[in-house]
Amino acid sequence: MKEYAYKLEMKTRDYECDVQGVINNANYQHYLEVTRHEFIQSLGQSFEEWHNRGIDVMVSKITINYKASLRGGQEFISCLNLKRTGVRYVFLQDIYRKSDMKHCISAEVHCVCVVDGVLSRGDEIEAPFKPFLIS
Amino acid sequence: MKEYAYKLEMKTRDYECDVQGVINNANYQHYLEVTRHEFIQSLGQSFEEWHNRGIDVMVSKITINYKASLRGGQEFISCLNLKRTGVRYVFLQDIYRKSDMKHCISAEVHCVCVVDGVLSRGDEIEAPFKPFLIS
Amino acid sequence: MKEYAYKLEMKTRDYECDVQGVINNANYQHYLEVTRHEFIQSLGQSFEEWHNRGIDVMVSKITINYKASLRGGQEFISCLNLKRTGVRYVFLQDIYRKSDMKHCISAEVHCVCVVDGVLSRGDEIEAPFKPFLIS
Amino acid sequence: MKEYAYKLEMKTRDYECDVQGVINNANYQHYLEVTRHEFIQSLGQSFEEWHNRGIDVMVSKITINYKASLRGGQEFISCLNLKRTGVRYVFLQDIYRKSDMKHCISAEVHCVCVVDGVLSRGDEIEAPFKPFLIS
Repeated sequence: MKEYAYKLEMKTRDYECDVQGVINNANYQHYLEVTRHEFIQSLGQSFEEWHNRGIDVMVSKITINYKASLRGGQEFISCLNLKRTGVRYVFLQDIYRKSDMKHCISAEVHCVCVVDGVLSRGDEIEAPFKPFLIS
Repeated sequence: MKEYAYKLEMKTRDYECDVQGVINNANYQHYLEVTRHEFIQSLGQSFEEWHNRGIDVMVSKITINYKASLRGGQEFISCLNLKRTGVRYVFLQDIYRKSDMKHCISAEVHCVCVVDGVLSRGDEIEAPFKPFLIS
Repeated sequence: MKEYAYKLEMKTRDYECDVQGVINNANYQHYLEVTRHEFIQSLGQSFEEWHNRGIDVMVSKITINYKASLRGGQEFISCLNLKRTGVRYVFLQDIYRKSDMKHCISAEVHCVCVVDGVLSRGDEIEAPFKPFLIS
Repeated sequence: MKEYAYKLEMKTRDYECDVQGVINNANYQHYLEVTRHEFIQSLGQSFEEWHNRGIDVMVSKITINYKASLRGGQEFISCLNLKRTGVRYVFLQDIYRKSDMKHCISAEVHCVCVVDGVLSRGDEIEAPFKPFLIS
């Protein structure tokens, strides 16, 4: 496994499966969001506190590659790295099944900062992320 | 079919199924909520507008009887009646499969009004409901 | 806190909140289901394995009392006890907010066994539950 | 609006919103899936029937561009076109808010066919799609 800025252990839930017995595609997007929020909380930050200061971080684009499926009741490790590209923060996220470290998902999530309704350069939230930014 | 104050035609979605190929139990609670919200919207009211006036309508208790299952891609009719019991508005809700009018769900949903954080008698929102209240 | 046959620590997720900033009512039903499934897994059993033997355990009725709300990113403890009433297994479930042990939800979930499509007395699955049944 | 092979009118649901009052990002993926399934159903085909013949159509990659937000209770039009690129069927999907035809989402969804567990060329399901394939 590569090195990551943050890793979170999670477990799929049976209601997240679809008829084929595998996790429905959209639920991985939930897992990816939970991982970003927990990462930000681990830095002592929160979307809610940013929002109260007029800063909204919004997903502008997401790309998910589905490589292998998870089934109900399986543990997995959700990992992320972070880089800046212009005004965008780009989260590079991977999900691995815990039992055999099979690589299930790779994703790129582009986020932008909107301050008081206007697209910003994103510098308002850079400080806590700085130690983790890869180039 | 009984008479109802409001009926809404809906269709199940494949992602709402679980491994058994039937709609997951919790999703019926979503259908019931959508039906109440559409009913309220049909009366020219909205939860959001109430909320902005300091009135929050909250579910205090829900009972759902599961009688028959829906599968993915099936049409159904979601119906409701409404009564008052003390401070509570009680929605009596039924879901029927459209193809054969099979009775799938019966539910009782108790709602209370909280005005500026304090439980109220609920009179603030009675006017639009009055023509529909059954005794 | 009362004594319980099983307790599970969980954490709410931001996407489970609705506009009011509190967990949407239907999501508690997901938490209750996850708790029952984890309990059953902790006994070395699984719904899937039962299903493959022709035994389907189905929710026939659920009652949820909403006492206090959870918000995004909050930890909670989901607890259950179990009794039999005739052919029904009744799960008595409670959810407590972890930070202050506030009692958020109490629920009663009635389950029945269907064996090869016919309602059974439920004896097929009693053995693993026996040590936990309350009277 | 561009020409599309298929259009579906839908309406957001309040429980699909998050704290910001806008539809949570992952729910658009549900809307996109519902649209594909309804399109396939409109052609007299179904995933379930394909599955029973040993043909599984799976999403291998999804890219979603978020351009504007939908809020609770808003109507929208979900549109798709379809092309083939090698073994992949690529759905080109757009979502427009109905009230002002604002372009909210553009997405590219890559699907592959797996026949009896082996990646196929996808010819098994081409016939019903043929009239709609763009080059």
